[in-house]
Amino acid sequence: MKEQNEQPSWKMKLHEIIYEADTPMGRLFDIALFFLIILSVILVMLESVESIDQHYHKTLLTLEWGVTIFFTLEYIARVISIKKPWKYIFSFYGIIDFISTIPLYISYILAGSQVLLAVRAFRLLRIFRILKLVKFIGEASQLQSALKASRTKIAVFIYVVLILSVILGTLMYLIEGDEAGFTSIPRSIYWTIVTLTTVGYGDIAPQTSLGQFLATVIMILGYGIIAVPTGIVTAEFSRGKKGQADDQNMVHVNTQACPSCSAEGHRDDATHCYNCGHSL
Amino acid sequence: MKEQNEQPSWKMKLHEIIYEADTPMGRLFDIALFFLIILSVILVMLESVESIDQHYHKTLLTLEWGVTIFFTLEYIARVISIKKPWKYIFSFYGIIDFISTIPLYISYILAGSQVLLAVRAFRLLRIFRILKLVKFIGEASQLQSALKASRTKIAVFIYVVLILSVILGTLMYLIEGDEAGFTSIPRSIYWTIVTLTTVGYGDIAPQTSLGQFLATVIMILGYGIIAVPTGIVTAEFSRGKKGQADDQNMVHVNTQACPSCSAEGHRDDATHCYNCGHSL
Amino acid sequence: MKEQNEQPSWKMKLHEIIYEADTPMGRLFDIALFFLIILSVILVMLESVESIDQHYHKTLLTLEWGVTIFFTLEYIARVISIKKPWKYIFSFYGIIDFISTIPLYISYILAGSQVLLAVRAFRLLRIFRILKLVKFIGEASQLQSALKASRTKIAVFIYVVLILSVILGTLMYLIEGDEAGFTSIPRSIYWTIVTLTTVGYGDIAPQTSLGQFLATVIMILGYGIIAVPTGIVTAEFSRGKKGQADDQNMVHVNTQACPSCSAEGHRDDATHCYNCGHSL
Amino acid sequence: MKEQNEQPSWKMKLHEIIYEADTPMGRLFDIALFFLIILSVILVMLESVESIDQHYHKTLLTLEWGVTIFFTLEYIARVISIKKPWKYIFSFYGIIDFISTIPLYISYILAGSQVLLAVRAFRLLRIFRILKLVKFIGEASQLQSALKASRTKIAVFIYVVLILSVILGTLMYLIEGDEAGFTSIPRSIYWTIVTLTTVGYGDIAPQTSLGQFLATVIMILGYGIIAVPTGIVTAEFSRGKKGQADDQNMVHVNTQACPSCSAEGHRDDATHCYNCGHSL
Repeated sequence: MKEQNEQPSWKMKLHEIIYEADTPMGRLFDIALFFLIILSVILVMLESVESIDQHYHKTLLTLEWGVTIFFTLEYIARVISIKKPWKYIFSFYGIIDFISTIPLYISYILAGSQVLLAVRAFRLLRIFRILKLVKFIGEASQLQSALKASRTKIAVFIYVVLILSVILGTLMYLIEGDEAGFTSIPRSIYWTIVTLTTVGYGDIAPQTSLGQFLATVIMILGYGIIAVPTGIVTAEFSRGKKGQADDQNMVHVNTQACPSCSAEGHRDDATHCYNCGHSL
Repeated sequence: MKEQNEQPSWKMKLHEIIYEADTPMGRLFDIALFFLIILSVILVMLESVESIDQHYHKTLLTLEWGVTIFFTLEYIARVISIKKPWKYIFSFYGIIDFISTIPLYISYILAGSQVLLAVRAFRLLRIFRILKLVKFIGEASQLQSALKASRTKIAVFIYVVLILSVILGTLMYLIEGDEAGFTSIPRSIYWTIVTLTTVGYGDIAPQTSLGQFLATVIMILGYGIIAVPTGIVTAEFSRGKKGQADDQNMVHVNTQACPSCSAEGHRDDATHCYNCGHSL
Repeated sequence: MKEQNEQPSWKMKLHEIIYEADTPMGRLFDIALFFLIILSVILVMLESVESIDQHYHKTLLTLEWGVTIFFTLEYIARVISIKKPWKYIFSFYGIIDFISTIPLYISYILAGSQVLLAVRAFRLLRIFRILKLVKFIGEASQLQSALKASRTKIAVFIYVVLILSVILGTLMYLIEGDEAGFTSIPRSIYWTIVTLTTVGYGDIAPQTSLGQFLATVIMILGYGIIAVPTGIVTAEFSRGKKGQADDQNMVHVNTQACPSCSAEGHRDDATHCYNCGHSL
Repeated sequence: MKEQNEQPSWKMKLHEIIYEADTPMGRLFDIALFFLIILSVILVMLESVESIDQHYHKTLLTLEWGVTIFFTLEYIARVISIKKPWKYIFSFYGIIDFISTIPLYISYILAGSQVLLAVRAFRLLRIFRILKLVKFIGEASQLQSALKASRTKIAVFIYVVLILSVILGTLMYLIEGDEAGFTSIPRSIYWTIVTLTTVGYGDIAPQTSLGQFLATVIMILGYGIIAVPTGIVTAEFSRGKKGQADDQNMVHVNTQACPSCSAEGHRDDATHCYNCGHSL
C-alpha cells in the first residue's frame, strides 16, 4: 500500500525512526531519547542546587545546550516528517515538546523563563510509549477508566470536603487567636485541609482547649472520610474486574494438554492445538 | 392544572424564578445567586486578612453591604412567594439563609457577631441545586446512603477509638513528664488522637524511650485501624452498586420545587406534589 | 421456672437491677451507672489539668470520693448478688471494676497509684451494654469477627513492617549523623515507624541528600503498604456481608445476663442459660 | 528410602537438626537460633545507644562475640551438612547468613563495617520457618501473590506519582523562595513527596499564599490518590479469596527441607523432593 504515499522516501524513513519503534534505528532513537529526557530533568534539578551549580556551572550549561539542540532537531524532524504537522503541533505531546525545548533560547531574551523548565517533566510520560510497554499502557488505561468512572463521585466528595474546610477553618479562626498562627481565614482553611488530610505539618497548631477539641473532631472526621474515595475507587476497580470477566474477547480454556507439544490452555471447543496444529 | 392555584400571578411568577430553574429568568436568578454566594464567602475571607483589610476596607464593606441587601431581598421574596412560609423559615436552608443574612445588621448592635459569618459557607451547599446537577445529586445521595448504611458500624468504631485514646492518652501522661508537652490528660488525649489518625503535628512529641515505644505502638495501631472505616464504606459501596443495578424502583427526578411546601425531588412526569398534593 | 432458684428474693431482686436492664429499676440503675462512669473519667482528666486542680481541688476530691463509694457499693452488690462470685471477680469486667474502684484507697498507702486510674476508661466499654444497644453489639461483633478472620494476615503484615523498620532504621542511623536527631538505632527505628505510618512529627528529620532520598523511598513504601491492611479487612468485610446474608443460623439476642454465671447474649426466647443451664 | 543416601550418617544427622524442625533436637536448635537472632539484633541496637554502650561496653562486646561464634559455627555446619553447598551459599538466606556473621571479624581490618550489621535484621525473616508457622507462610504467600498480581499497576501508579512530584516540586521551588526551605528542586521534590504521602514533617512548609494554595491542592490530591493502591490491592485480595475458595488443587505442605537441594514446601505425604527427586 506504500505506493499511495507521495512523501519522499527520506521523510518516510525519518517518520519510521522517530514515530515508530519496530526498526532497529527506531528503537535506538527511542532509547537515546529516553536517556536524554531523564538527563534533561536531572540537569534542571542540579542547576537548582546552589553548591553544585557554583562548581559545575559550565559543564551543566554545556550539557543543557546539548540537550536543547537535540530537542530542537527532534522537534523539527517530528514536524517535517509527519503528513499533517499541525495535528502534531497542537497535540498534547506536541505542545509539551515545544515548551520543554524553548526555555534556554528565551532565557536570553527575558528572565524568569525557568518556569517553563517545570514542563519538561511532562516529557517523562513519553517513556511509557518509548519502552513499548503496551502492558503498562493497558494497566494505565485500566487505572484511568476506573478513575474516570468515579470522577463525578470524587468531584462531589472534594466539593463537600472544601465546604467543610471553609466552615471549620472559619470556626478555628474565630476560636484561636493570632498567636497560634491562625492569622486569617484563608490561613485557617489551609490549616484545616492540612489536618483533614492527615498531613499535619505542625507549623500552625491550636493552643486553646476548645481549639484542640475542635482539631480532634476534624482529625477523626478526616480519618473517617479518607474511607470515602478509597471506597469509591475500590468499588470501581472490583466492578472493572468483573466487567472484564464478561468481556466478549475472552474464552474459557481447559486444562487439556496437546498430545504432540503438550501446550496447555486450549479453548473448550478447540479441535487442534493452537501451538503446533496437532489434532486434540 | 394551574387554575386550581389561588395565589396572585406575581407570586407564582416570583416562586418560579426563585425556587425553580426551568425558565430563563429562573436560571438567570440561580446563576446570579451562585456568584453572589461565592462572592460573599470570599469577602468574609478577605476581610480576615489584615493586610488586605487595611488597604481595601471601604471596598470590602461596600461589597458586603451589596451582598447583604441582595440576600435580604432574596429572603423576603422567598418568604412571601411561598404558600406556607413557616415551612421554609424553619427548614434547613431557611435557617441558613436567615443566619447568613443578618450578621452585618447585628454588628451595629453587638460585637462578636462575625461568628455567624461562618454559617454563610453552608449556603455553598445550595450550589448543587443551582447548577441543576441532578446527576451530582444522584451521586451525592448514593454517597449519603452508603454512609447512612454504615453509620452504626462507624459509630461503634469511633467510640472504640475514643476509649482507646482516653486509655492510651492517660498512659502517655503518666509515662511522659511535663517537659515533653504532656502537661495534662486532655492534652495527652489530644496528642494520642493526633498520632492515631496519623496527622502528627509534632508540637508535642514523646522524649523518653518508653514513651517513644508506646508512641510506636499507637502509630502501628492507627495505621491498622484506618483500614476499618475504609473496609466498612467499601463493602457498603460495593453492595450499593449491586443493589442499584438490580433496582427497578428508581425514577428520574427534576429540580422543580413545590410552590406550596417547597418539597424537592419530584418525578419528571409528576403533576402534583408528592408531599402535599398541590399541583406543580 | 424461677421456683428452681434457691437464692433469697432480695438477692434475685438485686441481680435483676444490677445485671439486667429489662425492669424500670434496672434501667434507672444502668443510666445512673452510665453517667457516673463518664463523670469518673472526666474527674481523672480534670485533676490532671493543673490550673483546674489548683482552684477546685476540694470539689474534685469530694466528687472523686462520691464516685469511689458508689463504685465500691456497686462492686460489693455485684459480688453478693451473683451465685458464683468468683466467676464474676475473675472475669474481664470484674477485674476492671475492681481496679477502677481502688486507686483512691491505695493513694493513702502508696504513691503512684494514679496509674490505676487509666484503667477506669475501660469501664466505658460497659456503656455498650448499658445503652441496651443490641444492634450496636451486633455491629461490634461483626467488626470483631472480620478483624479476627484477618488476624493472622495482619500479624504477618505487622511483623514484616517491623523487620522493614529495623532494617531501614539501621540504614538511616548509618547515613544520618547525630545532629539530625538520629542519635541511636532505636531512635532511628522510632523515626522510621513515624515516617512509614505517615504520621511524620518532624521532631527528627533527615538532613543529608542521601537521607532525604531514603526517607522519600520509605514514605512511598508506607503510602503503598497502607493498602495492605485495608485490602485485608475490606475483603473480609465483603465476605462477612455475603456470609451473613446467606446465614440461616443467626438469632436475635437480648441483654439479659444469667443470674448464676452472668453469661450474656441469650436468645430472645431462651428460658435457660446456654452456658450453665440455670433458668433465666 | 534412606539407603539411597550416600552421605555419612553424622552429616545426615546434622542436616536434620539444622535444616528441619521435625525432631526434638531440630526444634531445640531452631528455638536457640530464634533467640540468638533476636539477641543479635538487640545487641546491635543497644551498642548504638551511647549512654548504654559507655556503661556496658564490655558485656555487649562479649555477647556480640558469643553470637558471632555461634553464627560462624552454624554457617559452617550448614555448608558441610548439605550435599550441594554452593546452592545454599548463593541462595538468599545463605548470603544473609554470611553477611550477618562477618562484621565483627572485618571490624578489626577495616572501619565502617557496621553497615553490614543492618543486614542482620533480614535474618528475622527466618523466624517464619523456625516457628513452623506453615499457616503463616500460607498467609504470607497469599499476601505476596496479591502484591505480585498488582505489581504492574502499582509500578505505573508509583511512576505517575513520581512524575507528579517532579512537576509539583519544581513549581513549588519557583513559587516559594529560599527562606521557606525550598532551597533547591530536589529538596522541593522531597517536600512534595512528604506532603503527597500525607507524612508532613513540617521541617519545610510553604509561606506564601500561592504556595499554601498549591500545597492544599497537593494534599487533596494525595488524599485522593491514596485510594488507588488501596483499590488495586483490595480488588486483588477479593479475587484471590474467591479463587482460593474454588481451588481444589491445594495441599498441605510441611517445613521439611530437601537434604540435597534444600528446596522447601514439600507435601505432607511426600517421600521424594519435588525439585531434585532426592528421597526425603
